[in-house]
Amino acid sequence: MKTPLKNKDIFFPVPAALVVCGESMNPNIITVAWIGMVSSTPPSIQISINKERHSLQLIRSHKEFTVNIPSSSLFRETDYCGIVSGRTTNKFADTKLTPLNSIAIKTPIIKECPFNMECKVIHELEIGSHVMFVGEIIEAHIDTDKMSTENRAQVDIDKVDPLVYCATIREYRKIGRKLGDAYQSGLTLINR
Amino acid sequence: MKTPLKNKDIFFPVPAALVVCGESMNPNIITVAWIGMVSSTPPSIQISINKERHSLQLIRSHKEFTVNIPSSSLFRETDYCGIVSGRTTNKFADTKLTPLNSIAIKTPIIKECPFNMECKVIHELEIGSHVMFVGEIIEAHIDTDKMSTENRAQVDIDKVDPLVYCATIREYRKIGRKLGDAYQSGLTLINR
Repeated sequence: MKTPLKNKDIFFPVPAALVVCGESMNPNIITVAWIGMVSSTPPSIQISINKERHSLQLIRSHKEFTVNIPSSSLFRETDYCGIVSGRTTNKFADTKLTPLNSIAIKTPIIKECPFNMECKVIHELEIGSHVMFVGEIIEAHIDTDKMSTENRAQVDIDKVDPLVYCATIREYRKIGRKLGDAYQSGLTLINR
Repeated sequence: MKTPLKNKDIFFPVPAALVVCGESMNPNIITVAWIGMVSSTPPSIQISINKERHSLQLIRSHKEFTVNIPSSSLFRETDYCGIVSGRTTNKFADTKLTPLNSIAIKTPIIKECPFNMECKVIHELEIGSHVMFVGEIIEAHIDTDKMSTENRAQVDIDKVDPLVYCATIREYRKIGRKLGDAYQSGLTLINR
């Protein structure tokens, strides 16, 4: 039995990413749950920002942003950056998060986030209440002590301990236990 | 200390959604990790499909698709639908998943997935190796026994038990324990 919910904007699980935008001397942080990869060549990611948000004009002006994946211990800081506006406060100062110079762009990354991406805007698309920016990922960073030698991505996901957001339900979660490997778990259905 | 990883397409955690497309008489399933909400009014979601994939032409022809969120118990079926091609096999038959009539569109939803969205394509954007389709969510469904009366989204996330995918690292995971509520956890930083 299924119950129809009409056209609600429910979607989960998603990352809760900290997006940095604006001038390198006065950068702003915005929490973005409406985010997702959109291409592998070139590696590209979309972030969608409500038209009312302060960060919209900052990204439009500078044509770049960084995506910073918080560890689960940063769930309060992540929530804070989604509640208050950069129009009225300095969120780096408020959260004690540290801006760190990027390699390829002027917008800083966040030191305390274990995984970071530097992005240049290559598309902008207005969709109703939101504007989607597609950014090409020019450079990515990982905390050196969270690297893995065991997998091709060089990321130890348990050390990164990324925050998981259940949008609409409005809960922050940790990632849970491993079920299986991709491109392998499904092979059991081929051979059965 | 941070280590640069160049322009890799690493991103996590993401949903691993089962997207259905094609004719209602012969629908196909594709596993999509590059997916994300892009607007709330109208509720809209993007899926990005590699140009080589069979499903690309199906979505282009029919201008609609459904997004189906698998529970963690479906990780093998989810993986299978990302490994094999609908050009050569019927994935509904192979996985024993059941197509169920949608309300507003012709493309079916998947009965065994606890949460489903019916989408009509409103934008298409080519980005390098991939094509992004933005679908307006016309209708959503939840398994009635997985509804909650406690939150505004009417979804009991622990009953839905959504599959979490760590892209590039290529691991399927469960969601983990709750850390806090959104729009609340950050208030401690305002008052400190």
